[in-house]
Amino acid sequence: MEQKLDIQIQSINDEVAYQNRQYFDQIGLLVLNMISSPGSGKTSILEVMAQTLGKKLHVITGDVQTDLDAERLVKAGAKAFQIQTGGSCHLTASMVQKALRVFDIEPNSLLVIENIGNLVCPSTYNLGEHIKIAVVSTAEGDEKPIKYPALFTRAQAVLVNKIDLLPYVAFNIDRLASDCYKLNNKVRIFKTSCVTKEGFGEWMDFLYQVKKSLG
Amino acid sequence: MEQKLDIQIQSINDEVAYQNRQYFDQIGLLVLNMISSPGSGKTSILEVMAQTLGKKLHVITGDVQTDLDAERLVKAGAKAFQIQTGGSCHLTASMVQKALRVFDIEPNSLLVIENIGNLVCPSTYNLGEHIKIAVVSTAEGDEKPIKYPALFTRAQAVLVNKIDLLPYVAFNIDRLASDCYKLNNKVRIFKTSCVTKEGFGEWMDFLYQVKKSLG
Repeated sequence: MEQKLDIQIQSINDEVAYQNRQYFDQIGLLVLNMISSPGSGKTSILEVMAQTLGKKLHVITGDVQTDLDAERLVKAGAKAFQIQTGGSCHLTASMVQKALRVFDIEPNSLLVIENIGNLVCPSTYNLGEHIKIAVVSTAEGDEKPIKYPALFTRAQAVLVNKIDLLPYVAFNIDRLASDCYKLNNKVRIFKTSCVTKEGFGEWMDFLYQVKKSLG
Repeated sequence: MEQKLDIQIQSINDEVAYQNRQYFDQIGLLVLNMISSPGSGKTSILEVMAQTLGKKLHVITGDVQTDLDAERLVKAGAKAFQIQTGGSCHLTASMVQKALRVFDIEPNSLLVIENIGNLVCPSTYNLGEHIKIAVVSTAEGDEKPIKYPALFTRAQAVLVNKIDLLPYVAFNIDRLASDCYKLNNKVRIFKTSCVTKEGFGEWMDFLYQVKKSLG
């Protein structure tokens, strides 16, 4: 019964995601769905991006509780809208749609949907995004792709974050990359540090290319 | 509808959890339900514990995919049983009950149920355990308790792991402790490092005390 209901829920979610996508394309937005474990550095990455993009960076940020992330992002110069799910472990297309009704978004810019910190549940809920982004911190271990294939099969880009910690942790970046390619041979892998700002040029270039390819 | 079904599922789960608990008490097991983000170091903590406890340490370890964790634990000297949930983002009492039917457990010892790496969903599923343990790595950030209160309200002990990384990360352990105490003023907080082995004496002493208090 649980599985049947889950298929029903997914199918309703897909319909709303489709409506979201139509809206995104109408106003020329590039939309990313950013998924990771808690504490991999999603908000810190967005803070660094806000230094370049300012109010051209829009973030819908999901948390079970608190609006700490939206506060941080506004302080960093971005436009941010907080969704508090109050218990739900992933965002749904419908939550995003409700946010879009009140969140003032500039056409032809970038919207990042920062999902709930969770490597499992958010992976299978389409929100209408153009691409899914996985973030993994070097402190988390390099076996994440094989342990959580649902996300790493779907993510078009993987940000290996906190590379400044590489000297202090047991993390084999080649192993992670090789496992990612096995799941998705077209995935792009970026190495980033929000401390040293390493890797952000290449990452931002990639986003401009994706935006261009959407026309 | 989703919420109503969730209450039904929780109630069935609680019944099975109660049966599990009766079994644990009959054979004098102390049972921990260990919950954290992916990559906080749950398996590494258990590897260190296995150095002292050997086959007195039993672990039922849950993952969405792979049996890497069970392999690591057996290599470290513990007895381990892997549950692969194949998609489910948390263990249920029923999954644990099925494992108990085939997993050979020595009476009057310790069983740790290493839950799926996820700070949200596992928090509300009782497995029949005596205590819930939260693990947070210093690389994850100190705001986890207020962002994920469902877990930190229920956990009787919090292990702040990877304290060897403290010099390299922005992590305020006093803030984390203060937020934990606000949610649960009886919580015990332990600082551990699987690299330096710091904190494990105190942590193991605590487990002996809990075991004793169960009679």
